[in-house]
Amino acid sequence: MIRLRPGFILLLLLSFCPAQAAPSPLQEKVRAWRVAHERELIDEYREFVAIPNITIDRANIRRNADFIVGMLQRRGVEARLLTLPSPNANPVVYGEVNVPGATRTIMFYAHYDGQPVNPAQWAPGWEPFTPKFATAPVEQGGKIIEGWKSGDRVDPQWRLTGRGSADDKAGVMTIINAYAALAAAGAGPTANLKFFFDGEEELNSPSLADMITAHRELLRADLWLILDGPCHPSGKKVVGFGVRGDVNLNLTVFGPKRPLHSGNYGNWAPNPSQALVNLLASMKDESGRVVVAGFYDDVIPLTPAERQALAAVPSIEDELKRELGLANPEVPGRTLFEGFTLPTLNLNGIQGANVGLLAANVIPTVARATLDLRLVSGNDAKRQVAKVVAHIEARGWHVLDRDPTDAERAQYSRIIRIELKSLGTNPQRTPMDLPIARAVVAAVQSTVDYPVVQLPTLGGTLPLITIEQMLGPKIISVPVVNSDSNQHAENENLKVQFLWDGLETYAALMTMR
Amino acid sequence: MIRLRPGFILLLLLSFCPAQAAPSPLQEKVRAWRVAHERELIDEYREFVAIPNITIDRANIRRNADFIVGMLQRRGVEARLLTLPSPNANPVVYGEVNVPGATRTIMFYAHYDGQPVNPAQWAPGWEPFTPKFATAPVEQGGKIIEGWKSGDRVDPQWRLTGRGSADDKAGVMTIINAYAALAAAGAGPTANLKFFFDGEEELNSPSLADMITAHRELLRADLWLILDGPCHPSGKKVVGFGVRGDVNLNLTVFGPKRPLHSGNYGNWAPNPSQALVNLLASMKDESGRVVVAGFYDDVIPLTPAERQALAAVPSIEDELKRELGLANPEVPGRTLFEGFTLPTLNLNGIQGANVGLLAANVIPTVARATLDLRLVSGNDAKRQVAKVVAHIEARGWHVLDRDPTDAERAQYSRIIRIELKSLGTNPQRTPMDLPIARAVVAAVQSTVDYPVVQLPTLGGTLPLITIEQMLGPKIISVPVVNSDSNQHAENENLKVQFLWDGLETYAALMTMR
Repeated sequence: MIRLRPGFILLLLLSFCPAQAAPSPLQEKVRAWRVAHERELIDEYREFVAIPNITIDRANIRRNADFIVGMLQRRGVEARLLTLPSPNANPVVYGEVNVPGATRTIMFYAHYDGQPVNPAQWAPGWEPFTPKFATAPVEQGGKIIEGWKSGDRVDPQWRLTGRGSADDKAGVMTIINAYAALAAAGAGPTANLKFFFDGEEELNSPSLADMITAHRELLRADLWLILDGPCHPSGKKVVGFGVRGDVNLNLTVFGPKRPLHSGNYGNWAPNPSQALVNLLASMKDESGRVVVAGFYDDVIPLTPAERQALAAVPSIEDELKRELGLANPEVPGRTLFEGFTLPTLNLNGIQGANVGLLAANVIPTVARATLDLRLVSGNDAKRQVAKVVAHIEARGWHVLDRDPTDAERAQYSRIIRIELKSLGTNPQRTPMDLPIARAVVAAVQSTVDYPVVQLPTLGGTLPLITIEQMLGPKIISVPVVNSDSNQHAENENLKVQFLWDGLETYAALMTMR
Repeated sequence: MIRLRPGFILLLLLSFCPAQAAPSPLQEKVRAWRVAHERELIDEYREFVAIPNITIDRANIRRNADFIVGMLQRRGVEARLLTLPSPNANPVVYGEVNVPGATRTIMFYAHYDGQPVNPAQWAPGWEPFTPKFATAPVEQGGKIIEGWKSGDRVDPQWRLTGRGSADDKAGVMTIINAYAALAAAGAGPTANLKFFFDGEEELNSPSLADMITAHRELLRADLWLILDGPCHPSGKKVVGFGVRGDVNLNLTVFGPKRPLHSGNYGNWAPNPSQALVNLLASMKDESGRVVVAGFYDDVIPLTPAERQALAAVPSIEDELKRELGLANPEVPGRTLFEGFTLPTLNLNGIQGANVGLLAANVIPTVARATLDLRLVSGNDAKRQVAKVVAHIEARGWHVLDRDPTDAERAQYSRIIRIELKSLGTNPQRTPMDLPIARAVVAAVQSTVDYPVVQLPTLGGTLPLITIEQMLGPKIISVPVVNSDSNQHAENENLKVQFLWDGLETYAALMTMR
């Protein structure tokens, strides 16, 4: 049994209602600069989010990159695009600030591309690339603030709406403006700063290795600090020591060559949606456990330090269940953050013909699904995909990477096309007890009066393993955005206060000892 | 062992290559009239298919109804709209031709409304409501014939494209023009003719009972002849003695109240798509058998006459497998037409978030499916739905007919909203050995030299049980359209020859003894 000292109990109580710490002198300077520049910051941010940023939209991606170069240059930072000969390689925006006498170089990473959008799924008035302010997330009854115009007051509890407002243009805004605030306050950074703004993160950064090969010297640093992902759902600041890997599979199941009337062919022609449904159901049991053979076999057990950190993470599950309207988590008894340390098999999407008002009485020609496999230390993207493919083959499916020929259709009852969206990204983890890790925690801790949440791994994915293997720096994540931002989904939004707080966090990191 | 006489073997051989019979004198007259009027017929048909006809599109439905009244009146038929006070009741187009001395009254039924369309799913150049000619179905490499204009020759092997071109504006065209051809040829009908063109069939004709109550005397007839559904896949003409019933269920499964990042919540928040997939997979086993308790229990066994008719239906399964690119039917060994005599559970559509290029790494808020339950003699729509709902409840689901409240979300892990698209339609069957049944078969048989295909029941659904129970006529179906018409689906089309042949079939029925 653990006995708690009264002081610790007080700390625990406090930790349930994170309050603004009494600000440090540095925080006060950053805050004063921000208050004085709010109008320009907000105007620039809105202009930035208004540029569409889907990863494969090459023309607009370039507009985003050019915009960021402009942002850096306006703040006196030497900036340029790093490019590759391939037209499908999106540019990296690179910048640097050299500090005389500095003995350490820190790279600051964020990404400016965003996940695909289906505008039809956004709430009325919420648009992916027309940023607006809303009183709250749409799921909490948030309303768009009509008639707001540049220069009007912005309540820090409001949300700025739009794809990328949180994930991860907020990262670009935070890093650049934390530096601007320091520079304006004459509180210079203590390390050489480098900036790396990725334009391919949402496709698992397929050009990153080539980019590093082409620009190896520029990209050297002692530490890469990663600004992506959310804060703790309580709003508390987080330091993350790893990321999950990720790989996506697109599945297509083939039915009859032409769509069929469900009466005139029903009970005879196989329905590809039903076949896909049966296949997907075979992958996960009713208790949420993936039953693909060997799915959890490669996972490296947590270190004692990681286990300890995980145990210290404030419990948030009851609040989350209430906020999200869930009676129970997928696997009863497993906490949110314990789940981060295991691989996932998530059904991102499934579609066969139409539903609701558009539904017709048909047997369709194809049914499609997209799977998302998150990976943890020990997993490998290729190996994890192979397990899923083996599971599918073991159930009698003929697997292709293209549409079937007539001869294949005549031979095989169950035909599935499986394509990888990309080669995927492997997971990465940094030991929590390195001196540099302690310094990062201390810098973030200096801005708040509750214990900073330390996670052995974040739930999301970044291509950090490539950076670690090719360049060898230490890599640590310090997210800033609200956890209810609808990242990756419709009605994405950033709670403005989180950007303001993030400036102070990153100013502390840029001046850490 | 069955020994075949040489003559029967010849008949069997002939039956594999249906040839045009040496035309009867009546056929010759109808054909000559049609050849002389092809341009007007085609122009009128194209104008008709160009009027959008989705059942719930009230304004356009009315335009269709008015158009049909005009068609009838131009041919000298007394015509009117039958309406009801409800604004949601689509009008029936009614017409009649009284024949002095006739002792029998025949009602001719077709419907002018069509299934919903998703234009994005149609092939490039194929549009739901811009009828064009194509060389063949899109699945057989058919191309739109560019530059065709009114008056140009129409190859009878071509397809007229568009929603309703086959299902079932072809029925309206056939019935009206068979009469016009007879009238022009002075070969008057032998019975009083009535015409009933339904505007709600694709929603299971929810106003039909009220319509019969309001217009009972007008709608009396000795025989209702139903023109809907396809010919045998070989192209052979069919007489059908029954229809399946049908009822649709819309299912919505609820996940988190806001869409979640699949990394930041994966392994914790349940995915509604996965839950729906697991539920749907539990309804049908890998061999295609529905495993919902009692699903097949109510089915009334076939009569000896029905069994005999079914055994005589030409086998078409090998050709169908080839045409549709299927190695095996859903239930190995079951013929297409045997399947018609059993209820179905068909997954019309399923959708959770997005797939392919639009897919994002998310856990969505809802997942949806639409089920289609076809019913056969002995089944009842309400009872069949209750079996499916009981199956869902037995698996631990809390069933609602609306979205859940917060309190319900907090209490139940598995919440599903189930709504009926309509109350559904029960099946109907007419004995095959009645004298009037024999007369109908003889009339159709008089137009071809192969044995007409006689089916105990068609695979599709029509609200015939309501007509039988409220008005008491005999009811028999004589379809005319090609079976590869993509009825209910994208790229619907009518093969023109089937319309031309249908005129002769219906002229024979209007003059039968």
